[in-house]
Amino acid sequence: MTPVTGPGATVLDAPAPAAAAAGHVLHTGELHYSLTDPALTSMTLLSEIAVRHPDALSFAAGLPFEGHYETSALPRYLETYTRHLSQERGLTPEQVTRTLFQYGPTKGIINDLLARHLMIDEGLTVDPDAIVVTSGCQEAMILVLRALRRDARDVVFAAAPTYVGFTGASRLVDMTVRQVRETAHGLDPDDLEAQIRMARADGLNPRACYVIPDFANPSGATMPVDVRRRLLRIAEEEGILLLEDNPYSMFHDGGGTRPPTIKSLDAAGRVVYFGSFSKTAFPGARIGYVVADQRIAEGGRFADQLVKIKSMLTLNTSTLAQAAIGGLLIEHGCSTEQASARAAEVYRRNGRALLDGLQERFGGPDSRVRWNTPTGGMFVVLTVPFRADEAALQRSARDFGVLWTPMYHFYAGAGGLNQLRLSFSVLTPEEIGVGLDRLAAFVAQRTA
Amino acid sequence: MTPVTGPGATVLDAPAPAAAAAGHVLHTGELHYSLTDPALTSMTLLSEIAVRHPDALSFAAGLPFEGHYETSALPRYLETYTRHLSQERGLTPEQVTRTLFQYGPTKGIINDLLARHLMIDEGLTVDPDAIVVTSGCQEAMILVLRALRRDARDVVFAAAPTYVGFTGASRLVDMTVRQVRETAHGLDPDDLEAQIRMARADGLNPRACYVIPDFANPSGATMPVDVRRRLLRIAEEEGILLLEDNPYSMFHDGGGTRPPTIKSLDAAGRVVYFGSFSKTAFPGARIGYVVADQRIAEGGRFADQLVKIKSMLTLNTSTLAQAAIGGLLIEHGCSTEQASARAAEVYRRNGRALLDGLQERFGGPDSRVRWNTPTGGMFVVLTVPFRADEAALQRSARDFGVLWTPMYHFYAGAGGLNQLRLSFSVLTPEEIGVGLDRLAAFVAQRTA
Repeated sequence: MTPVTGPGATVLDAPAPAAAAAGHVLHTGELHYSLTDPALTSMTLLSEIAVRHPDALSFAAGLPFEGHYETSALPRYLETYTRHLSQERGLTPEQVTRTLFQYGPTKGIINDLLARHLMIDEGLTVDPDAIVVTSGCQEAMILVLRALRRDARDVVFAAAPTYVGFTGASRLVDMTVRQVRETAHGLDPDDLEAQIRMARADGLNPRACYVIPDFANPSGATMPVDVRRRLLRIAEEEGILLLEDNPYSMFHDGGGTRPPTIKSLDAAGRVVYFGSFSKTAFPGARIGYVVADQRIAEGGRFADQLVKIKSMLTLNTSTLAQAAIGGLLIEHGCSTEQASARAAEVYRRNGRALLDGLQERFGGPDSRVRWNTPTGGMFVVLTVPFRADEAALQRSARDFGVLWTPMYHFYAGAGGLNQLRLSFSVLTPEEIGVGLDRLAAFVAQRTA
Repeated sequence: MTPVTGPGATVLDAPAPAAAAAGHVLHTGELHYSLTDPALTSMTLLSEIAVRHPDALSFAAGLPFEGHYETSALPRYLETYTRHLSQERGLTPEQVTRTLFQYGPTKGIINDLLARHLMIDEGLTVDPDAIVVTSGCQEAMILVLRALRRDARDVVFAAAPTYVGFTGASRLVDMTVRQVRETAHGLDPDDLEAQIRMARADGLNPRACYVIPDFANPSGATMPVDVRRRLLRIAEEEGILLLEDNPYSMFHDGGGTRPPTIKSLDAAGRVVYFGSFSKTAFPGARIGYVVADQRIAEGGRFADQLVKIKSMLTLNTSTLAQAAIGGLLIEHGCSTEQASARAAEVYRRNGRALLDGLQERFGGPDSRVRWNTPTGGMFVVLTVPFRADEAALQRSARDFGVLWTPMYHFYAGAGGLNQLRLSFSVLTPEEIGVGLDRLAAFVAQRTA
């Protein structure tokens, strides 16, 4: 008997060194197929390239601007939220402590503030009880996909290209994703109809279509109002849901108008709405949410079904993290537009710098390089006359010191091979200039 | 065109009220089967009964004691962790801010502190890189089950009764769970061998066995060292993993010795180890972790595979929540035994009060009520000569003002119908006395 620990009971037996526990060997072939799927492995590969070239200028990272983060704000957010609990919601000190420390309600503790935010920023009237707060928007996608995937015939649709996190989430619950063509106006409704027909002909059961209508990741495209309305009509006619993901609508170019969310046009209850605070507040909190107000025939709402899944996935979202986001919201009148105004200004400035810089370097009449001109967001897509894959990226990083994201990952391998995504969110205009010079040199070499 | 928002761009079109969006109706039959499975619905049912009887004394809630939580400690934990980052790990102020606010590494940011904790409290030598920090231990279970579930033939084993969160997690990834008999010494190795044989005969592929060796939830049973060693031998012979869940080992009765973790006896790398801070720190953080140091033939470790799944489930665990737990650990020399010493004392005192109280009320020679005598943890199991189901619980709550948990939920419906779980973690000895008087009156009526 060898005493091991200090304060408490002696642990019986001298433990064998657990370092030796590397004896057993598993094979990936014994594991879930998603683990060898590009949707789950491509991002790892890309970040490995980034890690190998720490000094390269990066148009790759889709991170929010971090220049306005202040460590000292965190205790203040907590204090603001704590005061809200006691003063606005009338909780006793014991109840406040319990709210912050104890297991919390699976639906969340800041649903009232989220409903206020949705009214203020998006003109949406949402019952707080129809919201589920999640450990980042990624968990929200998992909840909905898990709920909708009943058997192998279920299928969802998404634009090609689309956010790789949606494809990856689908893989985790064995949900088939079929691709829909994308135009300059986002996902193409005509092709969605065609794809739904083809899926039915294949014996599949169409369940939902995933869309990022505002400044999509990765394409930067924004969907006009008429396309949004058309999607709603298709959803109703075809009996599917629309999964509307809205992380970027606050980052419009500031000029004039922006289209309403699809959710706010949705009189028939076809839209499940995903929200995220990773871009409008900060990603470290990992706070997202889903609005799922569809009625369930057996009682309650779709949100109540999602809550059952969440109770077995993460029990509830960190109350501490919710409190921080709650405090931040309160300090900005529950407006994420207000909370992220300074970051939005950075993205506008950078977006202009990038588009101007592209015009300067690739705008000549003989240029074989093209790009789109998003009206907001964080991304621009460049089309080049050569294969923009990992090998090209490695060369670009090693020989020219500039990183970007190959687009074909966002097509699940079926397209985009001569496109690359440029993210401009964490750079300065000067860095954008230097990066574009390097990119131009790389392109010149590849097209020489 | 109706302006809707304040600070930024005008939103085009007057949005329709989203409250009308309750138009579409979904049927649970269209959703994943887990949503109608008792593993996901029983806890909802039980908490509804609890909510209907707010004044009842509750032996039902498996919550940690909250009398030592202090709201003022939260900013201090963050500060302690921030200081650790700058002073011990040498981060610049910008790096500290980035660590707290930005997307973080999927594996986690407090892995070094967790490895120190495992050495100090459990005598375990663990490479921080073999740890994945999770959004509560529940997510850790999902990661491992998702990785191991390749097709419908895969099966895992768990004691009957077992933690309903494990059963629920299995349902979410369509993993079959087969039950293994439990004795006073925890999961029965003889029956595990028999069940593995039967599973193979049924064409199934045994992958792992889930165990809570210390003060199991719900049985309270603790597994002796020889049983732990026997399980390791079985795991090696049968080519399965052991999933060791250890939320309660710090809450031993304080007398003498406690057995080592199975992980610390594991020279062959058969144990995947789950840790939780919900009981030793506080549940609101939602911080758990998994140690997965098994080698993968194609490179890296099992932890690296789990990280790929996590990157599509929650991206990374809230860095804010990790920072709070990190600070709490640092303030207690990375010992959870030290961090939870006062709570452990409460559980010891309450456990004694409960066992003494049961003896007083049900210890007579003619008593038809029996119970076990756990040497720690939070739970005691009572066996009664009547059906202890929801109907009985409702009567107990309504007519006698006392709540408990029907055990049959923990048997996935196959057993435990005349058992009930008594949790003593959040009560005072006086409340335990009053609760037992009420329980005795209820039992007397049911057996009259």
